Amino acid sequence: MQNTIFIGIDGGGTKCRAVVSINDVIKGEGLGGGANPYQNLERAKSSIITASRLALEDAGINADEICNSVAGLGLAGVNIPGPYKAMMSWDHPFKKMYLTGDLHAACLGAHGGDGAIIVTGTGSCAYGLVDGKELMLGGYGYPLGDQGGGAWLGLEIVKAALLSYDGLGPKTSLEQWVVNKFELKDGLIGVIDHLAGQPSSEVAQLALGVFNAAKAGDEVAIKMVREGTTYIDSLVERLRDFGVPRLTMVGGIGFLWREWMKPENVEFTSEAEQPPEVGAVYYAQQQHAL
Amino acid sequence: MQNTIFIGIDGGGTKCRAVVSINDVIKGEGLGGGANPYQNLERAKSSIITASRLALEDAGINADEICNSVAGLGLAGVNIPGPYKAMMSWDHPFKKMYLTGDLHAACLGAHGGDGAIIVTGTGSCAYGLVDGKELMLGGYGYPLGDQGGGAWLGLEIVKAALLSYDGLGPKTSLEQWVVNKFELKDGLIGVIDHLAGQPSSEVAQLALGVFNAAKAGDEVAIKMVREGTTYIDSLVERLRDFGVPRLTMVGGIGFLWREWMKPENVEFTSEAEQPPEVGAVYYAQQQHAL
Repeated sequence: MQNTIFIGIDGGGTKCRAVVSINDVIKGEGLGGGANPYQNLERAKSSIITASRLALEDAGINADEICNSVAGLGLAGVNIPGPYKAMMSWDHPFKKMYLTGDLHAACLGAHGGDGAIIVTGTGSCAYGLVDGKELMLGGYGYPLGDQGGGAWLGLEIVKAALLSYDGLGPKTSLEQWVVNKFELKDGLIGVIDHLAGQPSSEVAQLALGVFNAAKAGDEVAIKMVREGTTYIDSLVERLRDFGVPRLTMVGGIGFLWREWMKPENVEFTSEAEQPPEVGAVYYAQQQHAL
Repeated sequence: MQNTIFIGIDGGGTKCRAVVSINDVIKGEGLGGGANPYQNLERAKSSIITASRLALEDAGINADEICNSVAGLGLAGVNIPGPYKAMMSWDHPFKKMYLTGDLHAACLGAHGGDGAIIVTGTGSCAYGLVDGKELMLGGYGYPLGDQGGGAWLGLEIVKAALLSYDGLGPKTSLEQWVVNKFELKDGLIGVIDHLAGQPSSEVAQLALGVFNAAKAGDEVAIKMVREGTTYIDSLVERLRDFGVPRLTMVGGIGFLWREWMKPENVEFTSEAEQPPEVGAVYYAQQQHAL
């Protein structure tokens, strides 16, 4: 494997990151557009090529050396059979390509092997890896699942604010928070038009407010945060029962849950050793050595 | 007003109904397509004309007499300023047109005047009328509001089924109900694809199952039905506090809530005297007499 050019890719819905690794040293990095083949197959392929070529150039290597590189791809969406098959049958530009899920790559990066990942960003999901066995939890998307994610929280906030507005639920400061955050000139009722046809990332913009309101003693917000925390704690406990030795929480709002989780679950978490794109390099190295 | 041809229209998202009334006797009926000007303005206008002409013909009157008719329109969506203005500036075919909301017309039909309406179909909303003053509650749409409606129930069912499936929530028979109802060949997980891009009426197909499961003692279903009932009871109580003398529950699942509501709230309800399209005739008569 000496002097082999490895490229590691972490691909998600909005962007993909590539690293070039030679003799276990990261030599360069590149950024591309969305690379979730379930959402958009052609865009995913093109983003992966873009990010890879940029990473090679960043490493001081001619981008055309992509054809002599061994790639590890950790992509969102390839847990679904269709996108997986489509990517596997890709006439790709690499010397060799190894494909796995984004959570698997993140786990390999974070822990160098067995362990678990809990993602709480716009959505939420969890993944555990023990002795080659995988456990996937959640990740069903908004609004069916993704409890503890920003979009789930945002929707709960809007629901509670509208109940408060109508006098059909307890009064909550979240009513004013929604008005302020979305700058609704005609009051809370404008939230309906504001969110019509918007992606879940827009309602997720509200999520932070519930943690502030809960700290300030708002009972509705406290109940909401406790419900999310119960879900996150149960993810951790299911993963610990599965036997994972380590666990890392990633995503934009992960740090906010830590203040509310059971202390023993917080203590069980640790920082990621390496990012997912480096985990994708590990995966390519493991598979290439077989 | 003697011998005046009145046409009453009840227009919603999927269909509109027209009646022809002469000297306070219903002479004919007609059915047209969707007539919600917020959803589709041109379709609404065309459906209203279709239903009106059919109702005239059904009454044994030449359809061209539409130009000598006085119309009352009770339409969904005209509580929003844009669609209201668009309908009011319509170069309509009637001799005279009077426009109001579908809930106002339903209330006039159900009670002949002051009273309240609670709608629980795919969505939910409530309306009260006392001495010319109106109270609107809910109706914010799926998934932001519409608690107690079929789509809200269906979403809660799917969420609980997925938590049960992942071992992250209590076990519930609703898991099997979703699989059976949607004929999911690969098990519950197929619900994600099944519901992707579907309108809220599809998830509302699940609603009935929760009432059956609750009767059979499923704790998750009981909790869900109780949450919906709390919302419906609070709608009734807000309307009673507002001073409505009577209340009618309409929509496909209204009768299912009655078994769970507080007895004094159930006793307060009564059947509609007349349907919404007859309420739209009353509205036209009131306005025409002014």
